[in-house]
Amino acid sequence: MSQALPSIGHWIDGQNVTGGVRSQDVFNPATGQAEKTVLLADKATVQAAIASAEKAYPTWRATPPLKRARVMSNLKTLLEQHSEKICSLITAEHGKVAGDALGEVQRGIENVEYASYVTELLKGEHSRNVGPGIDSWSELQALGVTAGITPFNFPAMVPLWMWPMAVACGNTFVLKPSERDPSSALYIAQLAVEAGLPPGVLNVVNGDKEAVDTLLDDRRVQALSFVGSTPIAEYIYSRGCAAGKRVQALGGAKNHAVVMPDADIDNAVSALMGAAYGSCGERCMAIPLVVAVGDKTAHAVVAGLKEAIQKMKVGAGTDGRNDMGPLVTKQHFEKVKGYVDQGVKEGATLVVDGRGLKVAGYENGFFLGACLFDHVKPEMVIYREEIFGPVLGVVRVKTLEEAMHLINEHEYGNGTCIFTRDGEAARYFSDHILVGMVGVNVPLPVPVAYHSFGGWKRSLFGDLHGYGPDAVRFYTKRKTITQRWPSAGVREGAIFSFPSTK
Amino acid sequence: MSQALPSIGHWIDGQNVTGGVRSQDVFNPATGQAEKTVLLADKATVQAAIASAEKAYPTWRATPPLKRARVMSNLKTLLEQHSEKICSLITAEHGKVAGDALGEVQRGIENVEYASYVTELLKGEHSRNVGPGIDSWSELQALGVTAGITPFNFPAMVPLWMWPMAVACGNTFVLKPSERDPSSALYIAQLAVEAGLPPGVLNVVNGDKEAVDTLLDDRRVQALSFVGSTPIAEYIYSRGCAAGKRVQALGGAKNHAVVMPDADIDNAVSALMGAAYGSCGERCMAIPLVVAVGDKTAHAVVAGLKEAIQKMKVGAGTDGRNDMGPLVTKQHFEKVKGYVDQGVKEGATLVVDGRGLKVAGYENGFFLGACLFDHVKPEMVIYREEIFGPVLGVVRVKTLEEAMHLINEHEYGNGTCIFTRDGEAARYFSDHILVGMVGVNVPLPVPVAYHSFGGWKRSLFGDLHGYGPDAVRFYTKRKTITQRWPSAGVREGAIFSFPSTK
Amino acid sequence: MSQALPSIGHWIDGQNVTGGVRSQDVFNPATGQAEKTVLLADKATVQAAIASAEKAYPTWRATPPLKRARVMSNLKTLLEQHSEKICSLITAEHGKVAGDALGEVQRGIENVEYASYVTELLKGEHSRNVGPGIDSWSELQALGVTAGITPFNFPAMVPLWMWPMAVACGNTFVLKPSERDPSSALYIAQLAVEAGLPPGVLNVVNGDKEAVDTLLDDRRVQALSFVGSTPIAEYIYSRGCAAGKRVQALGGAKNHAVVMPDADIDNAVSALMGAAYGSCGERCMAIPLVVAVGDKTAHAVVAGLKEAIQKMKVGAGTDGRNDMGPLVTKQHFEKVKGYVDQGVKEGATLVVDGRGLKVAGYENGFFLGACLFDHVKPEMVIYREEIFGPVLGVVRVKTLEEAMHLINEHEYGNGTCIFTRDGEAARYFSDHILVGMVGVNVPLPVPVAYHSFGGWKRSLFGDLHGYGPDAVRFYTKRKTITQRWPSAGVREGAIFSFPSTK
Amino acid sequence: MSQALPSIGHWIDGQNVTGGVRSQDVFNPATGQAEKTVLLADKATVQAAIASAEKAYPTWRATPPLKRARVMSNLKTLLEQHSEKICSLITAEHGKVAGDALGEVQRGIENVEYASYVTELLKGEHSRNVGPGIDSWSELQALGVTAGITPFNFPAMVPLWMWPMAVACGNTFVLKPSERDPSSALYIAQLAVEAGLPPGVLNVVNGDKEAVDTLLDDRRVQALSFVGSTPIAEYIYSRGCAAGKRVQALGGAKNHAVVMPDADIDNAVSALMGAAYGSCGERCMAIPLVVAVGDKTAHAVVAGLKEAIQKMKVGAGTDGRNDMGPLVTKQHFEKVKGYVDQGVKEGATLVVDGRGLKVAGYENGFFLGACLFDHVKPEMVIYREEIFGPVLGVVRVKTLEEAMHLINEHEYGNGTCIFTRDGEAARYFSDHILVGMVGVNVPLPVPVAYHSFGGWKRSLFGDLHGYGPDAVRFYTKRKTITQRWPSAGVREGAIFSFPSTK
Repeated sequence: MSQALPSIGHWIDGQNVTGGVRSQDVFNPATGQAEKTVLLADKATVQAAIASAEKAYPTWRATPPLKRARVMSNLKTLLEQHSEKICSLITAEHGKVAGDALGEVQRGIENVEYASYVTELLKGEHSRNVGPGIDSWSELQALGVTAGITPFNFPAMVPLWMWPMAVACGNTFVLKPSERDPSSALYIAQLAVEAGLPPGVLNVVNGDKEAVDTLLDDRRVQALSFVGSTPIAEYIYSRGCAAGKRVQALGGAKNHAVVMPDADIDNAVSALMGAAYGSCGERCMAIPLVVAVGDKTAHAVVAGLKEAIQKMKVGAGTDGRNDMGPLVTKQHFEKVKGYVDQGVKEGATLVVDGRGLKVAGYENGFFLGACLFDHVKPEMVIYREEIFGPVLGVVRVKTLEEAMHLINEHEYGNGTCIFTRDGEAARYFSDHILVGMVGVNVPLPVPVAYHSFGGWKRSLFGDLHGYGPDAVRFYTKRKTITQRWPSAGVREGAIFSFPSTK
Repeated sequence: MSQALPSIGHWIDGQNVTGGVRSQDVFNPATGQAEKTVLLADKATVQAAIASAEKAYPTWRATPPLKRARVMSNLKTLLEQHSEKICSLITAEHGKVAGDALGEVQRGIENVEYASYVTELLKGEHSRNVGPGIDSWSELQALGVTAGITPFNFPAMVPLWMWPMAVACGNTFVLKPSERDPSSALYIAQLAVEAGLPPGVLNVVNGDKEAVDTLLDDRRVQALSFVGSTPIAEYIYSRGCAAGKRVQALGGAKNHAVVMPDADIDNAVSALMGAAYGSCGERCMAIPLVVAVGDKTAHAVVAGLKEAIQKMKVGAGTDGRNDMGPLVTKQHFEKVKGYVDQGVKEGATLVVDGRGLKVAGYENGFFLGACLFDHVKPEMVIYREEIFGPVLGVVRVKTLEEAMHLINEHEYGNGTCIFTRDGEAARYFSDHILVGMVGVNVPLPVPVAYHSFGGWKRSLFGDLHGYGPDAVRFYTKRKTITQRWPSAGVREGAIFSFPSTK
Repeated sequence: MSQALPSIGHWIDGQNVTGGVRSQDVFNPATGQAEKTVLLADKATVQAAIASAEKAYPTWRATPPLKRARVMSNLKTLLEQHSEKICSLITAEHGKVAGDALGEVQRGIENVEYASYVTELLKGEHSRNVGPGIDSWSELQALGVTAGITPFNFPAMVPLWMWPMAVACGNTFVLKPSERDPSSALYIAQLAVEAGLPPGVLNVVNGDKEAVDTLLDDRRVQALSFVGSTPIAEYIYSRGCAAGKRVQALGGAKNHAVVMPDADIDNAVSALMGAAYGSCGERCMAIPLVVAVGDKTAHAVVAGLKEAIQKMKVGAGTDGRNDMGPLVTKQHFEKVKGYVDQGVKEGATLVVDGRGLKVAGYENGFFLGACLFDHVKPEMVIYREEIFGPVLGVVRVKTLEEAMHLINEHEYGNGTCIFTRDGEAARYFSDHILVGMVGVNVPLPVPVAYHSFGGWKRSLFGDLHGYGPDAVRFYTKRKTITQRWPSAGVREGAIFSFPSTK
Repeated sequence: MSQALPSIGHWIDGQNVTGGVRSQDVFNPATGQAEKTVLLADKATVQAAIASAEKAYPTWRATPPLKRARVMSNLKTLLEQHSEKICSLITAEHGKVAGDALGEVQRGIENVEYASYVTELLKGEHSRNVGPGIDSWSELQALGVTAGITPFNFPAMVPLWMWPMAVACGNTFVLKPSERDPSSALYIAQLAVEAGLPPGVLNVVNGDKEAVDTLLDDRRVQALSFVGSTPIAEYIYSRGCAAGKRVQALGGAKNHAVVMPDADIDNAVSALMGAAYGSCGERCMAIPLVVAVGDKTAHAVVAGLKEAIQKMKVGAGTDGRNDMGPLVTKQHFEKVKGYVDQGVKEGATLVVDGRGLKVAGYENGFFLGACLFDHVKPEMVIYREEIFGPVLGVVRVKTLEEAMHLINEHEYGNGTCIFTRDGEAARYFSDHILVGMVGVNVPLPVPVAYHSFGGWKRSLFGDLHGYGPDAVRFYTKRKTITQRWPSAGVREGAIFSFPSTK
């Protein structure tokens, strides 16, 4: 009886509220059981959240940046104190192992920390004497109501990429987290109030397309950040821009790791294991493709990966000994498994087959074992499409140029990396590769919080990247003031005002 | 016989070329005569320009920034040397008086100058030790083929807002100037080659909607800048974004000047004359509305303006004694005149009526004399809509708050200014006004070239402003590299490589 | 028996240590009693502190900036928690009232906060392709052992201007606080260890000239910051530079407040009361001189001040109802009182005479009541010299120009302010005044922590100001790397390494 | 009869003037003949130059930055046009070959170019709402009269490091170039006037210690830049700072190039030839020491250098076929030759001996052939001291650590480089080496003009480096304005001023 399950609502104006008549189950991926339901906001609910944000805006905008920064600083402390609780919410709904959830939370905290530097980040440029007696300066002022729509795979971190900087800049915010794992974002919203964020500055609505479209079309929403798949990102960008707002929409990925013949293969294999199978491959910065330069390199990499996969432990995320948990939903499990079937059909060599995996005690969980393909070819579906699961493919090429050509021709350009010792190979690669985030011997080159996150090609729509310095510019609008003062009056006139004193 | 008129074509791959079967007359607004025709590019012609830009891109992108900067520096020198020629092309097609054309060219040169600082402007951010032994830095890399669509009112300057910075950043460019006055932009494109710009780096196509749509839809065009009216800006933003590209679209304006009771009225009147009637009011930074605080202020301002208008000289732009020239086309003349008729009908007081003006020797020219309305009300069409002609309206209010409320409620938010001596009034105004460019005792607060240009509300679609620092970010994409080096090998190993030398 | 008093030692290598044979009494200025003694470090003790800092340096320098930043972030939290304790230490040794002490601590915390942004602040500049295939970037690397010498008047805050940024940048530090009130700095050093600062990164030595000279001459100390009087600042700068180190030495002040005829006199008087008599005038940003423009202005200001002084409460800093506490020492009391005597002798009008003040229950305290002079003249000693006590003088001039001439001719150029409503007066003043920190209707224009602190003329020796952005540059040295990679080898060579795979 | 030689004077207030009774011969190093004499300014002459600079300051300071920038931009064009003339002046007095002189002039032009970006570079930081209703911003204002003292080895370039940025920032300048080759600096000063620099903004005095000491002691000189040897730099820093001014003093160098076993030896040898013998080794960025890692590396490097030296052509700089010219003076020739003798005595292996060289037709020229030592040891004088001549020494070590230890222990830390293909070796080296300018496969890592120049340890005294971003800070002083406006008056009051209109 799903009506007996605890129900997750929305967070509007500093209150837990219900809203919308439709709802949806939230599963524990390790058990395969629905354990909660989530309300799906209807248009009116989303509009209420927007209205709350609009109401909170004037006072919050007028709060000096240093005070706003300190709320972020307090939040950082609270997140550190409550990180275990947040991790357990993540694991219960997303499935990832606890250590991985903690990594996500840490990264999120770093974004809150960066938002707390906002006094420094909001500095405008001041020019004395742009003309005789004329000064000019720029200010980065808040936009008003802003919004974010975030994916299931980092339920705590990606929201923290967005709203802390948005509100630190003086905006108010409406967040629509993934309806599959909304609890951690909601919990953090409550911590924010405890940290001093006034009600209405941050609102959270759960929902689906109806909620999304309401945010896209409402003219009160000035800017919208999105992270998700490319088709949705493109839809968001197109519809949001058509409604006159600024939009940054981060989409899918198919990140290639190039392994050069001079690379330290043991290191590379170890790095690739985490990059390919960490969080069950459900990361837009995961490495689902290895491009080995030379057959000797390919042979060594495949052998190394095969051996490492044997040692990997798959199971419930709550058990700290596990390396990998389940996929997020039954449907996603079927989809990923279908890609593996497809790869076999297309003629790639399935070196390790994780399809038969059963986890004792979790027989209904959405577990798929690690899969490894060799001899993947660029024309195969498993090469072209984003799988978002624990499936790693090895492509064999003869030269670095060939490897780079593959990457540059691919639809996506989110992340990539190269394993080499050679300075020139690294420099040539990082200069000419058409990818936004590049690692040199770093498998997941997610920029630190004081740099910005974003891909190229169809991995990002918009001009400014996520978090870091670009986020400051995204969440503010520029105002340029040009000022001169007429040269008669108080200054020269002072003496004439008091002639009797001469 | 229009076929006898000189025909203006396109500039593709460093060549004057024809393209497209349709053409359109280009008029001299002072005489009212068509003196040239301009070819309207068809899809294939625009695609040829894009292809030329795409071909030129790899070599240009690999040219060190300092070399690209020096082409801009050379161009600056050439523009200074040929400014008279450029001004005559402007006046012949746009109609503005020579001094005004020169002002436009000077501003354009300043943008070229700023583009020549590109070595400084392209600096990325470098962080040593983002983690132990890991470094990270960002680069602002070129986008590829970029494009610009520019309006008739600043035929030389607005193109120079765009393409010099775009190419200085390593992009190539396709410019579609206004088909009403394309000659100055074409001439400057040729000077750019003389300055050292390789063929194909800048292409110019003339055209209308067919050309525009081709630029909007072609996936090879990575970014597009537009300046024009708001309805078109909105169309450009929406369609360009739907095609996945980054777009900045600057639209219309209705700039209010607030005159406070403490202002120096003579100064203000003098400033307003130029701001309202300069370039026949055909400027997105023109002041078509004065908001006088207090009836005494209003009375003095209206009286001053009326007197000043009597002294203004209207006539052909080629005569250096004239203050104001004709409107750009017959159609535009009719439209502006219609607004004056409308204002009278709506009940505003027409203090000065310029509708009957005849200029001796230029009886067919598109001349409209300066018009001045008092008692304009916010609900009137002449208050709400952008007229883009020599029509100034005075609105009377009682307080600064009331003046600011009017401005903040208006659809547009491009520029505004306040005339006052009072520091607090100026600060309160500049902080709370919802306008992107604010002047304090400066009637046309166009930012200098080292700041950026852009309005708020429906005056700009996109997140980054035009020229200045924002343009650098608009014309580049961020790449973030994260690098570590494995700690075995040449460094520690050196000694082991040469055991015999121990 | 002074040997019975508690003895204050040094903090070296994370330990409370003794060192030096000489010692000195530490007084409670409210009671006039010596309540502690402080050891005066000999050369060997200071060298031990330097050695500790040198030993701690390599590990601390290699600690990633984010980790160093977090120690600052922790310290901020601890300072907030323990601010009451710190304030009581300040009041017991310096005498200032509790509210004033709290203000000092808050400002200090803001500097710690700014130091915690160090990941952002340490970013270097990266340029791709400074030549073909050549990249160049800059890094701001730590210096090594750095030092600070701080004055009695802000015993907690001024040390926090220095060492948190120095250590956040990767340096280690030796602090020599004022020997008159060293306890709060020592206490904070212990909190820093609690916050995670490794032993030896911050050392505190108490002492006098012997300690100072040791720091100045020791070649291991790379940089030295000083705040104190101008003669000592000049000595420090000269001797420290002669020893080859970088030095910033902030000296004395004689800050003028200009009151214009259009100023809101009530506001100005209220602002001046705090600026003149707060902390008993013992602030380098205090206002000891008012320059009234016009006799009418002067008359109103003097009358207002006289009235306000009557309402001021002077007494022990521990009593929260008091506005002003005692002077710091008996000697300083005598010196300040001597200046009042001198002013009378020189012919200034002593409007309020605070010399006779007795505070019940604190008859031996170093209390001097507020003193107010009118008709002060530029040639008087009380005009020229820094008094550093509760003595305010009013100078009468006829014009702003005359006021500015006085300020610009004065030996010092630390701070100044103007009271006016007039934008032009403010702009003209701030542009042309030869003073480093300028207030417009702000009596104590101490820059916030994210800007920098420093005077002009003989108020600062060196080129970089204290705290804020300048401090980052002061506590780091620039390293510029230029890099190219030879274009043969792994990259192109890859294919040749594996010919059999063709 | 030396009285018959042309006499070189000073350039003060836009005029060629004489001044001082002492004079000195200026030699052509290729012929060994005195061909001119130079007047040595006495105290009064230098003071006249300072007075001229002081007089020119107020007007120049008030000139908007963009206008100052354009003078630099004009100068850049003039320098390009007259570079051949400048080169011939350099060769005639310094001796360096024409191609080398041209390189120097190009680098100098790049500094002028960077100074022309000054509108961008002078931007201050603006913060809205540092407190409620309070704004704060910083400005980088000019200092006043500044000065520079430059060495013989880059007679055109080093002055252009200094004065263009100083004057672009609004200062005026007194330059004292080297009295051995003053003509190119004087000639450029005249071009600057042609470019639009007002008389007095730049003054040039020739002289020796008397002139130097006058500049150091005069309180009107606010800042002084020096480039020369370390003992003099230390003297300048100490004496200039003692006179209360800001000083940056760049001293000597002994730059090591590390060659790793994996380096491309041919490339390295070719790079080292230019770095060691270019400009006869008279460069503070020359490479006089190679540290070869491993005997095999050393053997190959020495063999390669020996072979390359045979092909090098030494002769008069006016002959375009020559690679290396003479040393600058007879005395310097003797000193360098003495170092070679000393090296032989100390036991280093003199692989190539250039001491006997005679250049046909230039028998009296100060020519010394290239000298190459192998087996140089750290304790030898030729290792420790700066020779500043065509003498290259090879030191043999076993590991990179050993190489780095040598460099880090050396007195100087100006430049260094490493030849390797290995990313990790390069990164470890650049991170840990105590040297200000680091090359990776770049033998002379002189930063480009948009980065800054400066060494560490005893190669630079002061905190800010030369040219580039640091120079902007060096030649300006920070002013921080904090502003609030009282909230009564014109703004709220407006309505009450006009009650009759209600």
